[in-house]
Amino acid sequence: MSKQGLAGLGQDGVDDCCPGLLTAPLDEAWSVELAKVFKALGDPIRLRLLSMIASRAGGEVCVCDLTPAFDLSQPTISHHLKLLRQAGLIDCERRGTWVYYWLLPEMTDRLAGILTRPAGRPLPEPAGTAGDA
Amino acid sequence: MSKQGLAGLGQDGVDDCCPGLLTAPLDEAWSVELAKVFKALGDPIRLRLLSMIASRAGGEVCVCDLTPAFDLSQPTISHHLKLLRQAGLIDCERRGTWVYYWLLPEMTDRLAGILTRPAGRPLPEPAGTAGDA
Repeated sequence: MSKQGLAGLGQDGVDDCCPGLLTAPLDEAWSVELAKVFKALGDPIRLRLLSMIASRAGGEVCVCDLTPAFDLSQPTISHHLKLLRQAGLIDCERRGTWVYYWLLPEMTDRLAGILTRPAGRPLPEPAGTAGDA
Repeated sequence: MSKQGLAGLGQDGVDDCCPGLLTAPLDEAWSVELAKVFKALGDPIRLRLLSMIASRAGGEVCVCDLTPAFDLSQPTISHHLKLLRQAGLIDCERRGTWVYYWLLPEMTDRLAGILTRPAGRPLPEPAGTAGDA
């Protein structure tokens, strides 16, 4: 596990903490951390859960309102939510019987930034012929 | 496989083809397509390959320049490149002995857009108390 973990990604205020994916080759440690977050997003159930949480008016949602949307058991839903939480995409709090979830927008902001082309540098079209061997 | 596949995502010019992840609950078919792309990004080797391709001056890179950066066999690298290509993130062309790869920036643009908060609508902070049961 690298010190440059994505766990701290949304916690500091440093805008240049995270090299873009399109600007320079990623180093190995950073690619490992970043892959964990994309892997968490690489499942349709987790994407639907994340979108339900993120788009909820009021900013948070009770797990009791998430489960009925899926033909899955409560433990399965909870497992998917745990993976989203471990990736730093959401957080939660138990209140009485239920657990409430909310988006950590710093993480989705970072991912959007990482996937955005560098300003003033449109990516070139590939040449018709090989530029180098 | 849905008709709204991500295969066509970078091929049409329709900006509103792809619902954002943060604006409304994703439908099931769309979440399946989107998860495939994030899953392709959910691997450190593929992230490093993509960053090497995307950041290459001239816009394309020979597979012969990618392989030496990894302690992996040529077939393994080619397999990872194939998964990136199947996800619509890169494309390639064989010229003589070698295959040349380039980024499909429409796809990373789309992903960045999907992860971006809706304009003029900052995501609310979670309330201190439950808003609904």
